[in-house]
Amino acid sequence: MGRRNVLLTVAYDGTDFVGWQIQNNGRSVQAELEAALTRQHKHPVRVTGAGRTDSGVHATGQRANFHSDIESIPGGDFAIAVNSFLPADIRCLESRVVDDDFHARFDARSRTYEYRFAIGHHLPPHRRRYVWLLRRRPSVPSLNRMASVIVGTHDYATFASPSDAVKSTVRTVTAASFFPRGDELVFRISAGGFLWRMVRSLVGTMIGLEKNGDDWQDMKGLLDSCDRSKAGVTAPSYGLFLTRVDYDR
Amino acid sequence: MGRRNVLLTVAYDGTDFVGWQIQNNGRSVQAELEAALTRQHKHPVRVTGAGRTDSGVHATGQRANFHSDIESIPGGDFAIAVNSFLPADIRCLESRVVDDDFHARFDARSRTYEYRFAIGHHLPPHRRRYVWLLRRRPSVPSLNRMASVIVGTHDYATFASPSDAVKSTVRTVTAASFFPRGDELVFRISAGGFLWRMVRSLVGTMIGLEKNGDDWQDMKGLLDSCDRSKAGVTAPSYGLFLTRVDYDR
Repeated sequence: MGRRNVLLTVAYDGTDFVGWQIQNNGRSVQAELEAALTRQHKHPVRVTGAGRTDSGVHATGQRANFHSDIESIPGGDFAIAVNSFLPADIRCLESRVVDDDFHARFDARSRTYEYRFAIGHHLPPHRRRYVWLLRRRPSVPSLNRMASVIVGTHDYATFASPSDAVKSTVRTVTAASFFPRGDELVFRISAGGFLWRMVRSLVGTMIGLEKNGDDWQDMKGLLDSCDRSKAGVTAPSYGLFLTRVDYDR
Repeated sequence: MGRRNVLLTVAYDGTDFVGWQIQNNGRSVQAELEAALTRQHKHPVRVTGAGRTDSGVHATGQRANFHSDIESIPGGDFAIAVNSFLPADIRCLESRVVDDDFHARFDARSRTYEYRFAIGHHLPPHRRRYVWLLRRRPSVPSLNRMASVIVGTHDYATFASPSDAVKSTVRTVTAASFFPRGDELVFRISAGGFLWRMVRSLVGTMIGLEKNGDDWQDMKGLLDSCDRSKAGVTAPSYGLFLTRVDYDR
C-alpha cells in the first residue's frame, strides 16, 4: 500500500483550546492531533485542517488529512487507532483513504456551522460551555426572514473583522436558517467559505436586530452598506460548532 | 412577611465537586450554595438538601430549603437572585415559599435519578463528562426485563455499599426502565429512597449481565441472594443525574 493520504472527521470541545491552528500561546487542536499522530507513527506527522476554528469554537465535523506510512491499519480504522493517543476533548469519528493529492482545505466545497442558543433565565450548568443564553424567546419567523437576506452571493464586508487580511469579502452562502432542536434554538449556515468571525458577527447582529424589533429590511440595509461599523455584537465563541465539511471526492 | 422557608430546585455539573455534602477535602455544592446565600443575606445561612449526591454526580432537579429573613424578594424570584451569587456550575432553576416546618430531605416522597449512556466507538468530547460509553449496543428489551425485577419493595443488600451504615437495606423502587433519548440510552429509576451508590451498582450490574448474555432470572437471583459480593461493577459517577424530588406538599 505504501504511503496513504488519510482523511479524518474530528470532533472537539473547543473550551480549552486557543483554536484549531498551532499558536505559541496555548493548546491547539492541530498541535494535539499532530502530537498524537507523531507518537503513533514514531516520526513527525503534519495535518491539514479544513477550517481554522477560533479559540473556544467547537467542532463535531472538522476534517483533516495527513499522510501515513503505516501499512497495517485499514483506512477506516485510523480513527479508532488515533483516539488512543488523543486527549478526551478531541475524538476522531471517522477515517478513510483519499487520493494522494487531496487537500482537506482547498478541496472543501462547503462548510457548515451551527450556533446553539439556550432560552431562559439561567444558563444550564451542563450546557454552559456550548450555548449562548437568550433571556427572551426571539421570534423564529422574524429571525428566518433576516437569515434569508444573507443567502446568496454577496459582499459580506459588514460582517468581516477589521484585522482579517483577505482581499475579497465576497462569499456565497448556500443556506441559513434558525430552527428549534429540543429546548434549544439552532442557527445553521452553509457556505463555500466564510470570512473570519463572519458567522458570529451575523448571529450577534440578527439577534440584536430581532431584540430591537427591527426586521429583514434592516438586515438587508446592513448587508448592503458594507460598513463594518454598523454590525452588531459578535456572538460568543462557545455557542459555535463546525458541524460538517463537504467534498466532491 | 418575616422569616420564610424557601425551597429551591437546583441544577449542577458535578464534575468539579466532591459531592453535595460539605466535606473538608474540596468544593461541595452545599458549601457553594451556603456561601452564595450568606453573601446575599449578609449573615450565615444553612441549606438542607433532599439528597446527598456523590462526587461527580450531577443534578438537574436537586431540592434544597433554607430560611430567609429577606422580605423584599417574592418567593418565586429567589432563584434568579441567588444565581447572581453562584458559580456557573450551579444554577437555581425555581424557588417557592413552603411551610415553615418543611424539610427538603425528610418530606421528600420520591427521588428520581437518570443514568445516561452513549453508544459507539468513542466518547463524544462535548458529552464526555455526562455519559458512560458503551462500545456495544445493548438489547433494551433485555435490560428492561432486568429492570422490572428491581421494581417493588425488596431487600437491596446485593447493591448496597459495605461502608454504608444504614440499618435496613429494604427500599421501595416505584419505577425503573431503560429508554432511548436522541442518540443516548437512558436508565430512569424512582424510589422513596436509595442506598448509597445503589443506582450505580444496579446500572453496572445490569449492563454487565446483558453483555454476558444473562437474563432477568440472573438479575432476580442476584437481588434475592442479598450477597454484596455478587454485584457487578459500580457504574461511573459522571453518568448519573438526580433529576427530580417529589413532595406531597
